[in-house]
Formats: sequence, structure tokens, C-alpha cells
Amino acid sequence: MSGRLTVIGLGPGDARYLTREAEDALASAEAVYGYTAYLDRVPARAGQTRHGSDNREEPKRAAAALRHAADGAQVAVVSGGDPGVFAMAAAVCEVIEGGPPAFRAVELAVVPGITAMLAVAAKAGAPLGHDFCAISLSDNLKPWHVIERRLHAAAGAGFVIALYNPASRARPQKLGDAFAVLRETLPGDVAVIFGRAVGRADESLTVTTLDQAGCVTADMATLVIVGSPATRVILRADGTPLVYTPRSLEAVTA
Amino acid sequence: MSGRLTVIGLGPGDARYLTREAEDALASAEAVYGYTAYLDRVPARAGQTRHGSDNREEPKRAAAALRHAADGAQVAVVSGGDPGVFAMAAAVCEVIEGGPPAFRAVELAVVPGITAMLAVAAKAGAPLGHDFCAISLSDNLKPWHVIERRLHAAAGAGFVIALYNPASRARPQKLGDAFAVLRETLPGDVAVIFGRAVGRADESLTVTTLDQAGCVTADMATLVIVGSPATRVILRADGTPLVYTPRSLEAVTA
Repeated sequence: MSGRLTVIGLGPGDARYLTREAEDALASAEAVYGYTAYLDRVPARAGQTRHGSDNREEPKRAAAALRHAADGAQVAVVSGGDPGVFAMAAAVCEVIEGGPPAFRAVELAVVPGITAMLAVAAKAGAPLGHDFCAISLSDNLKPWHVIERRLHAAAGAGFVIALYNPASRARPQKLGDAFAVLRETLPGDVAVIFGRAVGRADESLTVTTLDQAGCVTADMATLVIVGSPATRVILRADGTPLVYTPRSLEAVTA
Repeated sequence: MSGRLTVIGLGPGDARYLTREAEDALASAEAVYGYTAYLDRVPARAGQTRHGSDNREEPKRAAAALRHAADGAQVAVVSGGDPGVFAMAAAVCEVIEGGPPAFRAVELAVVPGITAMLAVAAKAGAPLGHDFCAISLSDNLKPWHVIERRLHAAAGAGFVIALYNPASRARPQKLGDAFAVLRETLPGDVAVIFGRAVGRADESLTVTTLDQAGCVTADMATLVIVGSPATRVILRADGTPLVYTPRSLEAVTA
């Protein structure tokens, strides 16, 4: 008898970003799989087993969870943010496609969550108020020339750009390289937002410009949003910046 | 004394998509503003006033809410999906920028929500598992040639494309025009997903190809996701399709 696999988005950091659907899905699971740092956010429950693994073991984790579900269990895989955005939902689908027929018989559900760019945008104002794109800078998943081409295409066409996975120990310079590519197309004064650990106790938000963006440190907990030439920064009465992109292009060119 | 304005994302349709943060923000508001269809989703509360308006009155609604908050009240503006994605958060920022100094003194918070593309992607599998973009087809907010250029740029660079506001009474043909533009760049067999009213009782999901996409009806409750050439459709054991885009480009070209 085949069970059920639910891939659950925990949102960024704090439990206040959990949806009711995610809470209910967590409550009904017999086993919870996840990268240890995400699993630590889920309170332990009697009768529920927990299976933590390293963040580089996504296909292995997906396969273990699918096997467990194929044996008839109610299994959950947890993911930070939204599981469909550069995360576990695609890893599970990849393993289903390459796996035994039993994996295709598992009932699969994906529970969406607040992805990092939405949380960072909300803290900053409304930078994603107009057309935007999301690019992962994880170049172990695609060659750099593809990333470069996408940055050029997106900037040239006026998209606001959210950059996921902007830094890693293996290649600390890639975010700087991305800014250099963007400076070939965008004016140096477009707004750049660095949101770090948004939704956690140590969250921070930095608003700067593309010209100055190289001076800000980013790590794997950082999400970067690069504005378009239409993006505006206004100062609130208390001196804090409010960053937004108008819905209408005419509001900008008028 | 200045009050507080909170722009709250209700997510798509059902209350199960609400985050705890959104529930808490709704509970603490003295006045709730919103497009009537969204306001209807919020249970009435004793001592809380409700201010519904038409969906074409966003700047007027934002101004009324800001005035109310500037007078010292705890005011909420509700938005479907995420308020930062083609929605009320940018409208509020626009009105703050163009309004009196008192508007800049209002304490502003944006509470993110599950935006439509994440909900539709979750129902379909993981089509947004690789780089993607979001484009609004509302051409009363920008000229059609800008939309056309963005569609070309996004398709040519390999982005999966989420299309918001795909149809309207004023211009029913624009989604068909967008598909025609995309067919100039993309192969006819790329996957196209139509998610209608996802998260509501009458939700529906249709998976087709770019060649056949013109035969599916879309309305303002529909969100369309156009895959990239890397997007895959596999059949589950029960015959339903699972659509996903692999995280790694090499998984595709291998």
C-alpha cells in the first residue's frame, strides 16, 4: 500500500510565517525529513520520527522519503521558504522521474510557503511591485555563462532581479561578478537590497546602490534584490528608506 | 499622533494559506480596507470597521487608509496573494511618495502572503524549480511593446514565465497574443499550466503545451505558467501529470 509524501514550505525563519496548511501537514506526518537546520525549526512530536541530513544531500533525502512513503507511511519533507523555489519540490520530482514505478504511485502534495524574496521585499517596501525574476547564483547547478546571459536579459528588459544563493564558501566572488555583469546594462544608482536572515531574531536589511553593492557582505542566508531603473527609494519621516517599484510604467516615465 | 498601516497578504483564496503573522495583524486592526472580494474573506470582528471598494480604486483606497492611519488608527489593507506582487503594497508606496508629509510618518508594515504562482506551482509539481520570472499582462499599466520585449527576453534566456492578469474584459485577446510572441522563441511542446481559483472550492488545473494553449480559457482568476525547454512533464501512476523544472541545467542536457 502506497502512502503519502508532503513537501512543506516553512517560510523564512520564524514560525509566524507558517501557513495553517503547513501546520496541519506537519501535525499529520508520521516521519519528517529535512536539512537539519530546517528540521530544528519543527517542534518534536510524540510518535513522529525525524530524519535530518546535510543540505548537499537533497536527492538522497528525497529518495529516502519516497521509499518511506512508498512503504505506506505519511511522510513530510520540510524546506525553508517555498519548497518549489530552488528547493526540495524539484529534487523530489527529479527522483520520482528517475526512480522505480513505486515512486510514481506515492500520493504527492506540495504545501507552498513564503519564499525569501517575498519576505525581503515586504521588509523593504514593494520592490517586486512590477515585473521581476528570480535567479539562483548556485553555479554548481548551471554554468556561469548561462547565469551571465540571464542577468543581461533580465536587466536589459527592465525586470527587477531577486538573487538567491548569492554566496558560498567555494565561490565567494560570484555575487561581485553578477554585480559587474549588471553594471554593464544598468545605471549605477539603481537600488540594491540585501536582506539577511529576514524573519529571524538576527535579521538585517541594507539598502544601497549597484555602484556600492560590492561593499556589502552576503552569505548563504542573504537574499539580494536588484531594482530596475524604475525602482524608487523614498525616505520615511524617521529617515529609513522605503523601496518600491511602481505598478505602472507610466508613473515612472511621466 | 500617527498610527500604523499594515498591508496584509491573504494568500490565494482559502484561509488555510494565511500565515500566523497575517492572522495576528488582522486581529489587531481597528479598520480594514480592501477590494470587496478580498474583504469578504476576512471574518467580521466586533469593534473593527470595514471599508470595501472596487478593484480599480487602488490609489484611492491607499490614500483613504493612509489618512486613517495618519489620524492615529491601527489600519489594515488586505490584498489577495502577496501584497508586494502586482498589488496593494506598491500602490500604498506610490501614494506615500505623492502624498503629504504625514503619510511618510505613518508606521508601515507589509505582511507577505502566498502569491498565486507559488500556489499554482505547488499544485502542478515544481515548475518554478529553476530560474523564473513573473510578468503582469495588465497592459493598462504598461504599453504592449514592453510586455512583448520582456516575453522575448525571458523566453530566450531560459526563464520559466508566470503570467499574472492574463485576461480582462477590455482585452480578451492579450493572452493569445502573448502565446504567439512566445512561440517565436520557444518550441511548441513546452509545458503550459493554467491554474484557476487555486485554493478555492472551484479550483482547476490544466496542463497543456504552448501549441495547444490557445484552446484553454483564462479569466482574471487564472494564473498561467509557461515552462522553459528544460521543464518536464511526467505521468504519475494514476495518470495525472507532474510538471517540474530540474534544479540543475545539467540534469536536462545530460
